[in-house]
Amino acid sequence: MSKIDLNSDLGESFGAYQMGRDDQVLASVSSANVACGFHAGDPMVMVKTVKLAAQQGVAVGAHPGYPDLVGFGRRAMKCSPEEVYCDCLYQIGAIDGACRAQGIELQHVKPHGAMYNTAAKDLDMALAIAQAVKDIRPNLILMGLAGSLFERAAEQLGIPFASEAFADRAYMADGSLVPRTMKGAVIHDGQEAARQVISMVTTGKIKAIDGTEISMKPHSICLHGDTPEAVEMAATVRRMLAEQGVEITNLKEVLDL
Amino acid sequence: MSKIDLNSDLGESFGAYQMGRDDQVLASVSSANVACGFHAGDPMVMVKTVKLAAQQGVAVGAHPGYPDLVGFGRRAMKCSPEEVYCDCLYQIGAIDGACRAQGIELQHVKPHGAMYNTAAKDLDMALAIAQAVKDIRPNLILMGLAGSLFERAAEQLGIPFASEAFADRAYMADGSLVPRTMKGAVIHDGQEAARQVISMVTTGKIKAIDGTEISMKPHSICLHGDTPEAVEMAATVRRMLAEQGVEITNLKEVLDL
Amino acid sequence: MSKIDLNSDLGESFGAYQMGRDDQVLASVSSANVACGFHAGDPMVMVKTVKLAAQQGVAVGAHPGYPDLVGFGRRAMKCSPEEVYCDCLYQIGAIDGACRAQGIELQHVKPHGAMYNTAAKDLDMALAIAQAVKDIRPNLILMGLAGSLFERAAEQLGIPFASEAFADRAYMADGSLVPRTMKGAVIHDGQEAARQVISMVTTGKIKAIDGTEISMKPHSICLHGDTPEAVEMAATVRRMLAEQGVEITNLKEVLDL
Amino acid sequence: MSKIDLNSDLGESFGAYQMGRDDQVLASVSSANVACGFHAGDPMVMVKTVKLAAQQGVAVGAHPGYPDLVGFGRRAMKCSPEEVYCDCLYQIGAIDGACRAQGIELQHVKPHGAMYNTAAKDLDMALAIAQAVKDIRPNLILMGLAGSLFERAAEQLGIPFASEAFADRAYMADGSLVPRTMKGAVIHDGQEAARQVISMVTTGKIKAIDGTEISMKPHSICLHGDTPEAVEMAATVRRMLAEQGVEITNLKEVLDL
Repeated sequence: MSKIDLNSDLGESFGAYQMGRDDQVLASVSSANVACGFHAGDPMVMVKTVKLAAQQGVAVGAHPGYPDLVGFGRRAMKCSPEEVYCDCLYQIGAIDGACRAQGIELQHVKPHGAMYNTAAKDLDMALAIAQAVKDIRPNLILMGLAGSLFERAAEQLGIPFASEAFADRAYMADGSLVPRTMKGAVIHDGQEAARQVISMVTTGKIKAIDGTEISMKPHSICLHGDTPEAVEMAATVRRMLAEQGVEITNLKEVLDL
Repeated sequence: MSKIDLNSDLGESFGAYQMGRDDQVLASVSSANVACGFHAGDPMVMVKTVKLAAQQGVAVGAHPGYPDLVGFGRRAMKCSPEEVYCDCLYQIGAIDGACRAQGIELQHVKPHGAMYNTAAKDLDMALAIAQAVKDIRPNLILMGLAGSLFERAAEQLGIPFASEAFADRAYMADGSLVPRTMKGAVIHDGQEAARQVISMVTTGKIKAIDGTEISMKPHSICLHGDTPEAVEMAATVRRMLAEQGVEITNLKEVLDL
Repeated sequence: MSKIDLNSDLGESFGAYQMGRDDQVLASVSSANVACGFHAGDPMVMVKTVKLAAQQGVAVGAHPGYPDLVGFGRRAMKCSPEEVYCDCLYQIGAIDGACRAQGIELQHVKPHGAMYNTAAKDLDMALAIAQAVKDIRPNLILMGLAGSLFERAAEQLGIPFASEAFADRAYMADGSLVPRTMKGAVIHDGQEAARQVISMVTTGKIKAIDGTEISMKPHSICLHGDTPEAVEMAATVRRMLAEQGVEITNLKEVLDL
Repeated sequence: MSKIDLNSDLGESFGAYQMGRDDQVLASVSSANVACGFHAGDPMVMVKTVKLAAQQGVAVGAHPGYPDLVGFGRRAMKCSPEEVYCDCLYQIGAIDGACRAQGIELQHVKPHGAMYNTAAKDLDMALAIAQAVKDIRPNLILMGLAGSLFERAAEQLGIPFASEAFADRAYMADGSLVPRTMKGAVIHDGQEAARQVISMVTTGKIKAIDGTEISMKPHSICLHGDTPEAVEMAATVRRMLAEQGVEITNLKEVLDL
């Protein structure tokens, strides 16, 4: 039987500010990427989110970002690899504290926003992040874009890697994401998104935006939880996968660690 | 032979801002309380400080503070026990990440500034901090003012406690510190400070400011490292203790853990 | 004809975080207290909020708070009067920049949260804030709790003062607010709140929670805008005041400056 | 008689952190670029710095930077022109508050670090900054690198512009700065720096690093004040200029506003 992990970014509230529908999306995913206080999240939100995930049996990952709360970590920053290494080590350690308090083990690390986008194409950055992951615990899983330099960095350092793909994004013939500026970049229909995921999981192939058949066999699928539509899409994807007999489980199971 | 730990607050630089003479004071102490990024310190400073301490065989502790960088954590803040618990869990986890990267084990936790002063007299706060310490690792040591509520909190939660006293502060007859507003509160002479420490370590007693003999047998002595005079005093205390045959060693040894 | 100003706290969003229904509540108030980036708000939110207020003819005031974003400025902080003076000068200057860019004049300053509560009872703090107001512009209006030390500070420094009362809070016989811990502290019914305001405006008197008639003749009424219920209450108060022939206008008109 | 303004970055301390020798460098310069709290400086440091400058008759300018305290505003950040506009409006307003409290008028705005470097080559960014300057006060002076897009932006918006050159930096034949990675980029000898400045001021020409004579007639010379050597160089430049009969005065005089 096929297995797949479903992940979503959670714990993005901050102080008096609420963001996302964490309690709802937790019902659909098997892995939660929890914000670590730099681009979103705060120490109390982190504790509550990890507790909620633990209660629902959802695995917890660190979701470190650039130190840019007002920009939500979405603005590229010219940080050095050493700065990114230290920022990741700090954030992963911090969320690991919340995991220990709940008696669970931190499962993975998935960088956020601009840090994710930069490192996907910059090996030094990807290596800096991978090194932080390894230095926290050698069997901690690095999660990143399928086919990106995250994978090469993980290989180079000998740590486990989980590739992710997107349910609601169309792909180019070379396997990269269709830029948001292009028509058809984002899939708005939950069933269509689910069909793309099922195709990835059961055949390892999907149709690119130009109709070309491309290879795409990720370990995890990224779902969103910040709007009612996103929560519904997440539920639809989960339901349709289950109907196809796909087992939704966490990364350790998928990666056979 | 008598044993004592010498501790100092380190890693208080931030970004382009330098503070303290960490490399010099590390030569005198056996335990370093490393700032965790809330009142001072940043992820890169933390990594460098922990590395330096590890190289010199100085044990590392977390030095969590209130989230008040501009106030250096010295301003009382009406945080709830739950907020303090989460802030400590976050900061301890973060510095623990830096320790793991250097292959050392985090030894202790000593709160900073206003958080320290508040919790010393407020059991709920002391318990919140002690719980965070315990939730990170049950044998992690909580360090706090001798005779304060830190000790009671540690006992209540069953975690190891290390009491600290000050080399350069005079004491009242009831064992509390002479307020800084009173004459004679601070001892400026290194030899006098050293003699007070030797008295604590070898007899378990010191003279209070009014001449009364009081009991004072701490596990650790707090030294400062922010001025050339402080660094010199630290060196003097260390040298004179050694001359008296007192073994300067880390908290695990002193507490016999 | 009676005149009254209606004020509300606005511009409390931050980065990707939305808070409040500013566009809706602006339809009901004559003065907006705009967050200045310390406890809430950011430079872009400030510009947008001031622009929106200017377009709707709503007067703009500064709403400075403690530097505590994660605590939303609600936690008491032991800042010195000098720190509070500088923090206010900074925040008022910053929002004044946004006002100048829109071609309007900053009308007033109303401190936020814990800073407001502390200064209402601490003359040194109230004077520090009043001095910052005066140093920005001597005819800038300080707004504060009716009958509090804000009024005395304004008098002492010779700057205009606007007293505010709350539509949705019950009062004690001594004119202070019924503590939130007491039953009946908060008025949830919009019409009841409106009647209390009408009583203040037309008779200068209201019934305290114990039935005593007390004097209460504020220049401004504070309304909330953070929930659909609050927005509806604001609209109800405005409508009922208009029906009673009360003119809703800004502080300059009410104070006859 | 020739006139020149000498400027230096001041007010870069933060909280408990000291940076720069402001009191010393103020004796040598005629204009102070005061940090505004984003990359350095805090509200109390700003008030103290503006007061000190006012007492010494040194004109005050805003020195806005990216919101990156830990990176000291030196890291490029992909902010939008709108974000940069709002960030500048905020910071200029804030320092303007401190100027008003001292009874002086804000003279100019000179962006800091990465914001300066980016805008010097990006017209949209330069225009965003120039618009903020204009929106605060149409006759406020924008200061920027001689020959950069700051000048074009100022022209386009019709605001006064002051070009600056560096005493201690060598120039390329095209008038740009020799990159720090090249040998000879930085002039370490105070007298040599002074001679370069005298050449700029009296002849409007200097020798580029390859010996070519290039045109360089700035309104202001940037001096540093963060090290004892820098303070000494500033004093040397000032003294040698005075010996040559060059009048050192503020930007308004130099620009004849």
